Amino acid sequence: MLNQKRVVIDFVSPQINNGEFFIKRVVNEVVNVDAHILADGHDVLGASVLYKNEKDSKWNEERMHLVVNDEWKASFVVEKQGFYTYKVEGWVDYALNWQHGIERKIDDNQHVNSELLEGIEFLKTISKKANKTEKEHLLRLIKLFEDSENYDEAIKEAVSEKLHNIFLKYPAKILANTSKEYKVYVDRLKARFSTWYEFFPRSASENEGVHGTFKDCERLLPRITKMGFDIVYLPPIHPIGEVNRKGKNNTTEAFEGDVGSTWGIGSKHGGHKDIHPQLGSLKDFKTLIRKAKDEGLEIAMDYALQAAPDHPWVKEHPEWFKWRPDGTVQYAENPPKKYQDILPIYWESKDYKNLWKECLDTLLYWIDCGINIFRVDNPHTKPFYFWNWIISEVKQKHPDVIFLAEAFTTPKVMARLAKEGYTQSYTYFTWRNSKHEFIEYMNELTQSELKEFMQPNFWPNTPDINPYHLQGANDSKFIQRYVLAATLSSSIGIYGPVFEQMISDSLPGREEYLNSEKFQICHYDWSLENKLTTIIAKINSIRRQNTALQQTNNIKFCHIENDNLMAFYKWDQDKANELLIIVSLDPYYAQQGTVQIPLYDLGVQQGHQIQVQDLVTGSSYNWFNEWNFIELHPTLPFHIFKINK
Amino acid sequence: MLNQKRVVIDFVSPQINNGEFFIKRVVNEVVNVDAHILADGHDVLGASVLYKNEKDSKWNEERMHLVVNDEWKASFVVEKQGFYTYKVEGWVDYALNWQHGIERKIDDNQHVNSELLEGIEFLKTISKKANKTEKEHLLRLIKLFEDSENYDEAIKEAVSEKLHNIFLKYPAKILANTSKEYKVYVDRLKARFSTWYEFFPRSASENEGVHGTFKDCERLLPRITKMGFDIVYLPPIHPIGEVNRKGKNNTTEAFEGDVGSTWGIGSKHGGHKDIHPQLGSLKDFKTLIRKAKDEGLEIAMDYALQAAPDHPWVKEHPEWFKWRPDGTVQYAENPPKKYQDILPIYWESKDYKNLWKECLDTLLYWIDCGINIFRVDNPHTKPFYFWNWIISEVKQKHPDVIFLAEAFTTPKVMARLAKEGYTQSYTYFTWRNSKHEFIEYMNELTQSELKEFMQPNFWPNTPDINPYHLQGANDSKFIQRYVLAATLSSSIGIYGPVFEQMISDSLPGREEYLNSEKFQICHYDWSLENKLTTIIAKINSIRRQNTALQQTNNIKFCHIENDNLMAFYKWDQDKANELLIIVSLDPYYAQQGTVQIPLYDLGVQQGHQIQVQDLVTGSSYNWFNEWNFIELHPTLPFHIFKINK
Repeated sequence: MLNQKRVVIDFVSPQINNGEFFIKRVVNEVVNVDAHILADGHDVLGASVLYKNEKDSKWNEERMHLVVNDEWKASFVVEKQGFYTYKVEGWVDYALNWQHGIERKIDDNQHVNSELLEGIEFLKTISKKANKTEKEHLLRLIKLFEDSENYDEAIKEAVSEKLHNIFLKYPAKILANTSKEYKVYVDRLKARFSTWYEFFPRSASENEGVHGTFKDCERLLPRITKMGFDIVYLPPIHPIGEVNRKGKNNTTEAFEGDVGSTWGIGSKHGGHKDIHPQLGSLKDFKTLIRKAKDEGLEIAMDYALQAAPDHPWVKEHPEWFKWRPDGTVQYAENPPKKYQDILPIYWESKDYKNLWKECLDTLLYWIDCGINIFRVDNPHTKPFYFWNWIISEVKQKHPDVIFLAEAFTTPKVMARLAKEGYTQSYTYFTWRNSKHEFIEYMNELTQSELKEFMQPNFWPNTPDINPYHLQGANDSKFIQRYVLAATLSSSIGIYGPVFEQMISDSLPGREEYLNSEKFQICHYDWSLENKLTTIIAKINSIRRQNTALQQTNNIKFCHIENDNLMAFYKWDQDKANELLIIVSLDPYYAQQGTVQIPLYDLGVQQGHQIQVQDLVTGSSYNWFNEWNFIELHPTLPFHIFKINK
Repeated sequence: MLNQKRVVIDFVSPQINNGEFFIKRVVNEVVNVDAHILADGHDVLGASVLYKNEKDSKWNEERMHLVVNDEWKASFVVEKQGFYTYKVEGWVDYALNWQHGIERKIDDNQHVNSELLEGIEFLKTISKKANKTEKEHLLRLIKLFEDSENYDEAIKEAVSEKLHNIFLKYPAKILANTSKEYKVYVDRLKARFSTWYEFFPRSASENEGVHGTFKDCERLLPRITKMGFDIVYLPPIHPIGEVNRKGKNNTTEAFEGDVGSTWGIGSKHGGHKDIHPQLGSLKDFKTLIRKAKDEGLEIAMDYALQAAPDHPWVKEHPEWFKWRPDGTVQYAENPPKKYQDILPIYWESKDYKNLWKECLDTLLYWIDCGINIFRVDNPHTKPFYFWNWIISEVKQKHPDVIFLAEAFTTPKVMARLAKEGYTQSYTYFTWRNSKHEFIEYMNELTQSELKEFMQPNFWPNTPDINPYHLQGANDSKFIQRYVLAATLSSSIGIYGPVFEQMISDSLPGREEYLNSEKFQICHYDWSLENKLTTIIAKINSIRRQNTALQQTNNIKFCHIENDNLMAFYKWDQDKANELLIIVSLDPYYAQQGTVQIPLYDLGVQQGHQIQVQDLVTGSSYNWFNEWNFIELHPTLPFHIFKINK
């Protein structure tokens, strides 16, 4: 193909799988675009990023600038929810090239009369689009360039800043080339910045042994708000299967009164669109949603695509399950593990289109009830293309909806689910425990392409994971885990009240809670306040007030001369808010070290005073040096310093 | 879109710009393909690389294996010239998955009668495609699985290696997914392994002051062959412009008898399809090509797309040049530099289609005369898309043709030209001089994606570059430069006879030769033999005999405890030929150090004896240790060791 264009555009970034997937932002975030832009020869190039919201018809333009080595940059801000498209345009800027050449020839004492005549062509073209003042100026220059009498004035004008700016303003873009188009999906702020509290409604009763209800849950809302959470995530609230129901501590035999696993969904009382009768009515649930909203809380539901053997789907849609040659239906297994109370969906089903539609319909049903956040159970055991389809179907109509992927699986599968559209992802944070592990993992999440599409959500514990390091741990360790999650990641969650009450009994040698709420009702003192509830409330309040903590990718680790101390710098988009966080990883002894503050990033010189203010204690320190002494005690094993320059 | 497939394929490698460009190989080289292959759940996956030559209708299949972390690998060998297409296919292997599950259940002492019945389905399906023996075996198994009497034998057969291999041989590939298709272009071996000798035919005369001819060149062929070169590259042999002709040493005024720059192409005697009358006739040129071929040499021509002011194109196609408002035609410039004897082509010309066709026609004309190698002058000042088009047009008809890009420009532009189709590329080797520079540069060339499409060609000097480190250098330095080029890169070249005769006078303070042959005829003693000619011949002979030196990417640097000594390990595709090269970078003093031999790559243990044989001196050493003492003298500042295990 004979293509006369001269500029080539390569390595446009950010982009995922060459534009197959979209990158993600939240409202008012910046997209920094880089590209390699090349042409033959030595001509001056021009380039722009063009971008528009899906609802706009016109492209917005942001001029790029050359940084180094044919690498160009520009940024734009996404102000609205939904999809934006962006692309890079590059061209040879013949007018600027002419001015650049004439400057160098004049410096070399060459006579440029002929060049002045050549310039007239550019002035004439631009004068057609220029405004009145510019046009008058250009017409004057044309005369001047034609007139060999005023050579000195002519060359002065030819190389003037004024003419340069006119050229910049009206680029000719002859034979311009354009990259392919890339997409960014813009979510509401909560997609990035969210603080989750998970509890089991059936354990919400004040009275021991009594099944909790949505009404009981209402009573807990002020407590959760006071601790500073903004999302209340409830494990499945649907009817629980009665066939093959699990007993306490995941035993295969259920006894009289055993309530079964909340994830064993479906019984004669209904399936995924129904509510467990003991929790209350649909009306009660809607009331809970509304009351939560009044408290500033959103209710997140669990979306677990599997069925108890007595789920209505099994009879109504037997083709959605895999039947064995002996006529039984196959229960979930990961040999040799068996989940007798759950039937997996048969995704290879010939009737998969109706299955997918029912799955979508279920989501839309609960969205209609007022739910905008779903925590999805084991998404890595359902097909990737299904998630891509269902998430995009939902978000087209309901852009506020947030999906959190509970995929504790291999890193590439987790990443792929995020690419397919998941808003947030559970992570390996729960098992990261030493300084080098945190630094490596944070660099993987925030310095690789993951930062463009995967919003981590850090959970110190979940009903499925009672990590070894929390089993029997003291309050200092619990504080450390919370402050690490809450400052390393802008989205976090805890499974309470076991976390804030530091309940950590386990099945021997396993990271499973003893007497797990997954299989039974537990009784808690829901009025209990302790050091942990106070610290959690304080940290969550700091997160709300400091925008530097409302984004995950803006992190840089600082040198600190002690492997039990970890320090990192956080900032917000405009650098209006800058924090230095230091956490001790030792729950038993005091630790000292010297931390290197990031002078370059702060834009200050050594010797310049900065003030760091501890946002928990209120104490301030004046620092003049690059390296500063730190001591942390198990009593309060962290500093969140606000930096004032 | 409702897509029921379960496997996703990501990050297929190698590929360039997501398949926009092809990767490159030479005949019989291997392509190692990697891909990330994922599915939901825990099922066993299968994957293949499918590939075929452009002339094949059927895909060849090479099964991939899982390495680690969802990364899969397979290799194939390209046996023919031309394009190959390759792609990756992945599927859930339900039969293997069944076998894997049953194994784990048996280990867990579960009863698998129902599973055996399930397995029959796979056996039935496969028995339809299996060969006779396999079919008999499968039918026996079906009976066995149906028959609960022989449970022990049934489970033994179910988990047998024999059945496993049948499953592997006949994968079901239900709902398989396929990556996009990628291309590899396969060249003849010379694309990768070539040894160039450049000289100016007009300086080939035995008699001082007499213009050399093609007949004189014939006389030089045995000398060039004896030194071990296989390509003779001639600067332009076309008529030289008489208007604005340059004088000696690039002066703007030519005097009587000045011959002008060979790159100032075109005069009343003709243009790009004509021969400078003083060199001889077309018949003489064809005779030279033939005689060179008899000597085992190929003639490479210069392809320089520019014109002297009196080139026939200027009158016949004025629209191919840029005319200024004052009626003059614009000569080449890079302000403030001026090239008054050359008019650049005006690529923005409205008549560009005819221009491109004439450029192509010129190449085809010389190819018809027997030329298969072109060294292209300044390709980075002509449009990228032009090169893509013209190279692909030529190679479609003449796959043996090799294009060498003389683009001394920014790294991304050099890389892009290689992506657009150039076979070989000049590099920055000419200016790399210290150990860390060599290591960094070689890693850039051989460890980044460049290795897939850019074949470097290392030149210690060119008519345009008399590098500072060679000006006034001793023979040790010249030897070092040659051995470095010849062992670091499989394609190399020198500009002779100045190189082997160590002529290095320069314009003061510049990397330009004094009395450059670019602007005048020089007289040489073409019979001169010296240490350098002997060493060059020896090194080139070693290159021919050792396949490890016929590829550039197979290099690994070895630790050596001295910054004046550089050591690296080279091997061929089958590891039948392994070399250890050690070069001293000091031309004045002896240097000692200890080198660490790459035990892991050699596949030997410390304490195991290896023998290293110096391929220049013939001396052998027996080494038992990982670290070994080395001493190099300026007299012979390198070892090329053959490793015998």
